[in-house]
Amino acid sequence: MTLHGKHLIAGWTNGEATEGFRAWDPVQSAGLDPVFFEATPADIDAAAEAAEAAFDAYAATEPAHRADFLERISSEIEGLGETLVKRASRETGLPEGRIRGERGRTVYQLRLFAAVVREGSWVDARIDRAAPDRTPLPKPDLRRMYVPLGPVAVFGASNFPLAYSVAGGDTASALAAGCPVICKAHPAHPGTSELVAHAILRAAEAEKMPDGVFSLVHGQGYEVGLALVRHPLVQAVGFTGSLQGGRALFDAAAARPVPIPVYAEMGSVNPVFILPSALENGAEALAEKLAGSILLGVGQFCTNPGLVFGVGGEAMETFLQALGEHIRRAEPASMLHRGIRDRFCAGADRLAAAQGVERVAASEREADAARTEGGGALFRTDVQAFLANDMLSEEVFGPSSLVVVARDTAELERVAHSLKGQLTAAIHGNGEDIARYDGLVRVLRRKAGRFIFNGFPTGVEVCPSMHHGGPYPATTDVRTGAVGDTAMQRFVRPAAWQDFPSSALPPELRDRNERGILRLVDGKYSTGDVG
Amino acid sequence: MTLHGKHLIAGWTNGEATEGFRAWDPVQSAGLDPVFFEATPADIDAAAEAAEAAFDAYAATEPAHRADFLERISSEIEGLGETLVKRASRETGLPEGRIRGERGRTVYQLRLFAAVVREGSWVDARIDRAAPDRTPLPKPDLRRMYVPLGPVAVFGASNFPLAYSVAGGDTASALAAGCPVICKAHPAHPGTSELVAHAILRAAEAEKMPDGVFSLVHGQGYEVGLALVRHPLVQAVGFTGSLQGGRALFDAAAARPVPIPVYAEMGSVNPVFILPSALENGAEALAEKLAGSILLGVGQFCTNPGLVFGVGGEAMETFLQALGEHIRRAEPASMLHRGIRDRFCAGADRLAAAQGVERVAASEREADAARTEGGGALFRTDVQAFLANDMLSEEVFGPSSLVVVARDTAELERVAHSLKGQLTAAIHGNGEDIARYDGLVRVLRRKAGRFIFNGFPTGVEVCPSMHHGGPYPATTDVRTGAVGDTAMQRFVRPAAWQDFPSSALPPELRDRNERGILRLVDGKYSTGDVG
Repeated sequence: MTLHGKHLIAGWTNGEATEGFRAWDPVQSAGLDPVFFEATPADIDAAAEAAEAAFDAYAATEPAHRADFLERISSEIEGLGETLVKRASRETGLPEGRIRGERGRTVYQLRLFAAVVREGSWVDARIDRAAPDRTPLPKPDLRRMYVPLGPVAVFGASNFPLAYSVAGGDTASALAAGCPVICKAHPAHPGTSELVAHAILRAAEAEKMPDGVFSLVHGQGYEVGLALVRHPLVQAVGFTGSLQGGRALFDAAAARPVPIPVYAEMGSVNPVFILPSALENGAEALAEKLAGSILLGVGQFCTNPGLVFGVGGEAMETFLQALGEHIRRAEPASMLHRGIRDRFCAGADRLAAAQGVERVAASEREADAARTEGGGALFRTDVQAFLANDMLSEEVFGPSSLVVVARDTAELERVAHSLKGQLTAAIHGNGEDIARYDGLVRVLRRKAGRFIFNGFPTGVEVCPSMHHGGPYPATTDVRTGAVGDTAMQRFVRPAAWQDFPSSALPPELRDRNERGILRLVDGKYSTGDVG
Repeated sequence: MTLHGKHLIAGWTNGEATEGFRAWDPVQSAGLDPVFFEATPADIDAAAEAAEAAFDAYAATEPAHRADFLERISSEIEGLGETLVKRASRETGLPEGRIRGERGRTVYQLRLFAAVVREGSWVDARIDRAAPDRTPLPKPDLRRMYVPLGPVAVFGASNFPLAYSVAGGDTASALAAGCPVICKAHPAHPGTSELVAHAILRAAEAEKMPDGVFSLVHGQGYEVGLALVRHPLVQAVGFTGSLQGGRALFDAAAARPVPIPVYAEMGSVNPVFILPSALENGAEALAEKLAGSILLGVGQFCTNPGLVFGVGGEAMETFLQALGEHIRRAEPASMLHRGIRDRFCAGADRLAAAQGVERVAASEREADAARTEGGGALFRTDVQAFLANDMLSEEVFGPSSLVVVARDTAELERVAHSLKGQLTAAIHGNGEDIARYDGLVRVLRRKAGRFIFNGFPTGVEVCPSMHHGGPYPATTDVRTGAVGDTAMQRFVRPAAWQDFPSSALPPELRDRNERGILRLVDGKYSTGDVG
């Protein structure tokens, strides 16, 4: 399969400009063919107009048909086989095994949303029948369900080239909800993006979905993304990336004449609080597991534990020594791209130079810049220094962590108050600690979307009970999450029909419950017919 | 009961400043005692800090206890009896009968939310049990539910001095969700606000709710409201009012270092499309009913039908004549306050002076400015003039409507495309029309939150199927509605717990389902225990 580097807008390829960019192999430090074209305002317009033109027809597709489409995307992605694995691995420096695992998650997500759509109850259908004889006023017939918002712009994430990129969670949930998608490919893996976009378009063709249900545009700078978010036909935005990038999109969306929701999943330092009981009962085992979480995937996860808090003393020193030993032994490995490596090195250097911060350990083997490598790094400080310097609580994206040593548990609670919003917070201790340190527990619960006991933040299970989100700056919308079936709710709005004849209603709201979905009828849940 | 005009912050009264304002009786054109104090930044701080201090304890109240509190607020409001009715009527010019009706709706809403909280399933509890033996990685135990956001700022609406004011839908849904409320009283009915705030505080005291669960502050200008929205401890905002006011609050919230959601329900012109079949079958009966909707409550509803569209011809002329007759016979009546009357008169004058617009009818008896009266007004124009002048599609808050006469139904569809977001859209015709004018139907469905067949937009039923919301500029958040049980979802966020012992979880997520709520356990709905 030869990549062409062009945009894929409503099924047709576009992009004759000579301005463009190449993907980069971070391991070989080499550019990759072909040249990818920077989208012009006319390209953005064409993609948005195609998405709008597709909207009515796509929103009206039968659930089973839409589910077939999602499942077909899954099998088309699987059909890309090793071509996809090799290209994604080359563009990201991620091992092929990791790419295969991520592909598994990507197709699982698509099939999960397909199952939710096929079952159908997610639309939260509600029916309140008329009471024409009610006094003083008759009661109208009212019916309500979720309907799709309209065209959605999705921004691929660099650290999940499949699961949070072109056919990742945002695209899957938007398509499942009935919204056409315009995806802005991440410039770090444009070839992977093109391959997956072709898979989606083949599925759209096979399932006879309207043109414009999916488009892919390329772009290196902020301009293409901002133009997409500002486009009047775009109704919502899904983004995974940096705080700076996410906030810029959020601000642009809020400043529109008609503001739209932006679901940006951004940075998080995922604090891990280790209570004295946990340090005393197996500091070394804890250090080993924590090191695994810090180093996993060269630390390139939004759930990477960047801050660790505990009380000083002998057990803490044992723990730090063991943790440092794991970090020292960690092999440096290629990071996703040079920008990420540069920011990681700069962040680690800033930490090393900060007042009151000491570098405890670093990978023994030096990281090879020519292979875009990042090595493990471990730092320590105390609460006073930590509270005096905001920079110390900022995310350093990569295999680095800062251990903040408190004098006592009261200081732990105090420092917890200072934390910003997080995707996760973890606490290690025994069963009695939860009651004993109730103040700390309550503070952490306020700060994070997911609260973990005796575990580590990396590893985001895809299941109904997962919540992957959190207070700002972890995300721009604390009310939603990007993982699991509820992610679809980001791309819908409620709509009510009053006194319409049953035949003119969406099938989900007709008297006859032909889809057998769960509906709230006159205040009671039912899967039966009305009448 | 003597009003004191002071703020009510965490149960204590405050406000010794000499700067203040009085309520105004629009019927008598007279100021009313006492002087109400303009909140200072220190007052806002105190209210926000009290709300934050109350949050943990209030969020942790048992559902039955919180429901008792909401029900107690209802009975305390009823206990205010005629004192409340008379003060509200004097401050708003609304007839006492209307105030009594609105009081009925207010206490009904509070009891509805109490019932939802008492039943408890609204938290959407989800449990996925651990699978420690799963390969390649063990599956953790994950549990998820909605938790309250934190302190909520509520802005009372001038046109619903009870149902969308101090103890109205926003306050009731926020308190039901577990969020403390800081209410900014509308300066047009500060005495009504103080009375209702006392009722809430008496209920809080009787139910031993934490201080700070509710505060009331007064203010005439935008400053107090903006300070509240910008306060770092405030986590969400509910507002009903003008587009200008709502957008200012939205912009302030979006510009915060930590942005927060703003649920502003703003203007709407609630277009009514009358298809030829409806005009031909009873133009006069239709005119009578539409006139009733236009004139209801001196047109002071956000669901007032401000735009009517139909095809020209003999039936249209009959309709216009009959509608004009009803408007001419309409008695002018006192509007809520001078600002609203001034804006209504200016809006009607602008319409009358606009190119291509003709005044068809106005109340025969002249409106009495000394009694703050507004009279009915009816205008007509054609599609060309309508599309040429954006001003014609703006809301004129009051008993006025503009009939846009199209040449044919194709023009109706074209003009429908030009409309902004609306709370409601109505269509009048017969059963076959819905299929015949599918294009028009689809456009209107995109534009509005509630879509009405052969009915009128005024009259918002409080029931699970109601959706009172819509695309911008009807609201700042198309994803939510302000009426019915789902309004609570505006003030919560999902939170997940991973691997916590059952005893350390919120009761809703423990193995034993002691509250008997509906939960999604391992992908299946159940009201039983886990394990």
